[in-house]
Amino acid sequence: MNWSFIFILMSAFTSIGQQSDEKVVLVIHGGAGTILKKNMSPEKEEAYRTKLEEALLAGFEKWKKGETSVEIVRASIHVMEDSPLFNAGRGAVYTNDETQEMDASIMRGSDKMAGAIAGVQTIKNPIDGAIAVMDKSEHVMLAGEGAEEFAVKNGVEIVDTSYFKSDVRLKQLQRVKEKEKAILDHDGDQGSVDSSEDEFNIDYIEDKKFGTVGAVALDQSGIISAGTSTGGMTNKRYNRIGDSPVIGAGTYADDLVGVSCTGHGEFFIRNVVAYDVSALMHYMQLSLNDATQEVIRKQTEIGGKGGLIALDKDGNVSLPFNTEGMYRAYITESGKIYIAIYGS
Amino acid sequence: MNWSFIFILMSAFTSIGQQSDEKVVLVIHGGAGTILKKNMSPEKEEAYRTKLEEALLAGFEKWKKGETSVEIVRASIHVMEDSPLFNAGRGAVYTNDETQEMDASIMRGSDKMAGAIAGVQTIKNPIDGAIAVMDKSEHVMLAGEGAEEFAVKNGVEIVDTSYFKSDVRLKQLQRVKEKEKAILDHDGDQGSVDSSEDEFNIDYIEDKKFGTVGAVALDQSGIISAGTSTGGMTNKRYNRIGDSPVIGAGTYADDLVGVSCTGHGEFFIRNVVAYDVSALMHYMQLSLNDATQEVIRKQTEIGGKGGLIALDKDGNVSLPFNTEGMYRAYITESGKIYIAIYGS
Repeated sequence: MNWSFIFILMSAFTSIGQQSDEKVVLVIHGGAGTILKKNMSPEKEEAYRTKLEEALLAGFEKWKKGETSVEIVRASIHVMEDSPLFNAGRGAVYTNDETQEMDASIMRGSDKMAGAIAGVQTIKNPIDGAIAVMDKSEHVMLAGEGAEEFAVKNGVEIVDTSYFKSDVRLKQLQRVKEKEKAILDHDGDQGSVDSSEDEFNIDYIEDKKFGTVGAVALDQSGIISAGTSTGGMTNKRYNRIGDSPVIGAGTYADDLVGVSCTGHGEFFIRNVVAYDVSALMHYMQLSLNDATQEVIRKQTEIGGKGGLIALDKDGNVSLPFNTEGMYRAYITESGKIYIAIYGS
Repeated sequence: MNWSFIFILMSAFTSIGQQSDEKVVLVIHGGAGTILKKNMSPEKEEAYRTKLEEALLAGFEKWKKGETSVEIVRASIHVMEDSPLFNAGRGAVYTNDETQEMDASIMRGSDKMAGAIAGVQTIKNPIDGAIAVMDKSEHVMLAGEGAEEFAVKNGVEIVDTSYFKSDVRLKQLQRVKEKEKAILDHDGDQGSVDSSEDEFNIDYIEDKKFGTVGAVALDQSGIISAGTSTGGMTNKRYNRIGDSPVIGAGTYADDLVGVSCTGHGEFFIRNVVAYDVSALMHYMQLSLNDATQEVIRKQTEIGGKGGLIALDKDGNVSLPFNTEGMYRAYITESGKIYIAIYGS
């Protein structure tokens, strides 16, 4: 890692986006939640920072070669999906049935084409499934086995479900189940949450919903694309679908702005968060930062915890959240990198 | 049927909404598409008008009793779901696998709570599944077998899949398959479409996507709710999900307006149509009619055929579409009924 390229810009307020003097070409997130420095070892923090930087650089390589924003988003999300650190792809959390059900979506701003898959169990990189739906079908959203059948037919890499298995995530599931049973048994009394044994600092009850990765890129042609990929909610039941595969809620891009969200998905669906950033900019002429601040304010108002990343056509970036932390990073056209984890 | 209550207001332009002097309390649609008078027998037209009126009156009964807008929407959609005339519930079209996969959603404007189910095969009235998700889960969207398991646990009426079987719909599927094969064999040359043998006037290729029912109600407490239910697209594959169960795209409601859409779902998802009506009203201060005209204009711009119904907090109604026709109807607080099928 070349530290000379790393600018650590601390934000004064949790929910204020960071400004860059240079045009930002790629912004990513790795989930929001109760991410506190006191629960994080230096080694663990370093692991996250290294992986976020790797994700940025993978996308930036594509940017330098003049590739499309869809390919930049894909490259960047691949790195996070392939890492067990994030709740997406390989690191996907367990459902109540001890399976992994993953969702992903992509949207390209220039023509507003979009693709999404929900509840897939065998697609190695769910973002690839979403991109295939956008590029190779007349549809926007495919689900479950049908989505997998489509992926197979279209050459998307399939893996055995054992690829997604992890002792750490299984232990998380067991602890969430115990905790939920305890809450049920004690009529809502959560008691104290001990996350010291948890490699991923999951605050079991509150944060079981918050893992997701996403990327928004602006390519050399000026086209914005946004993508999101998630393993969903630990201990989820009933084939629940969150906001990540919902265009307008978890992901949105047009000619003005691209957005990828992370957080308690149900609230992001109800407030149509990703598209709302664009609507505020288009209809109210708000700046990117004012628009994202407003949607996070509205999320806080209805109790929806999480955050988002947004990148506009001029390379302005905003990374607001109303949780304790959000794994977030961006890279500028000259290769300057910003990485942050905690809030104020 | 009491014809003295029926006001037939012909619109001058296909896509202009109808105005009422009285507050409208319930507006419904039964799908948009290539619905032409020349293809419709008087008996068939009468059957549709009678069923639309029945759906309005079922909801209006609830309205008069002071029930919630969710219950008004439910009652109204039940009538259409229980009829083989519409592509929802009992009349759901066949997938490529000769199954029925139904989607539905509901949103209540006062608290923006929402529920949706996608790809269910055994829920008699899919709108009931969506309402159960809203009322009895912490989730917004459940899919497939998980959604059905949830429905069973929560007392939603389940039927054998044979309930949804119909020779007419099966014949439609076979004709769509033949037509698509013919198109494939002839490299895009569709030739002429003969819909004279089709009881539901399906223009096989173009209109296979357009059946859906929906309702938006304004109850005596001033709360707006919107709901949508569909059997999806004839010959659909890969567990495709359209806009109907996507909050923001096919269904949306807040304290200002409620919207339910019908049409080529993929385009409605990409333009976040239902929420966009609200955004234009909130952010641009557009009137209901100007807002719905603008979203239909944007749909036409990207090639998205279909229509929507919208009802605002003052009881104004708008029913625009860019197809040849849309089954549509509303009822005012004094019980006056408007029913229309064709465009100009």
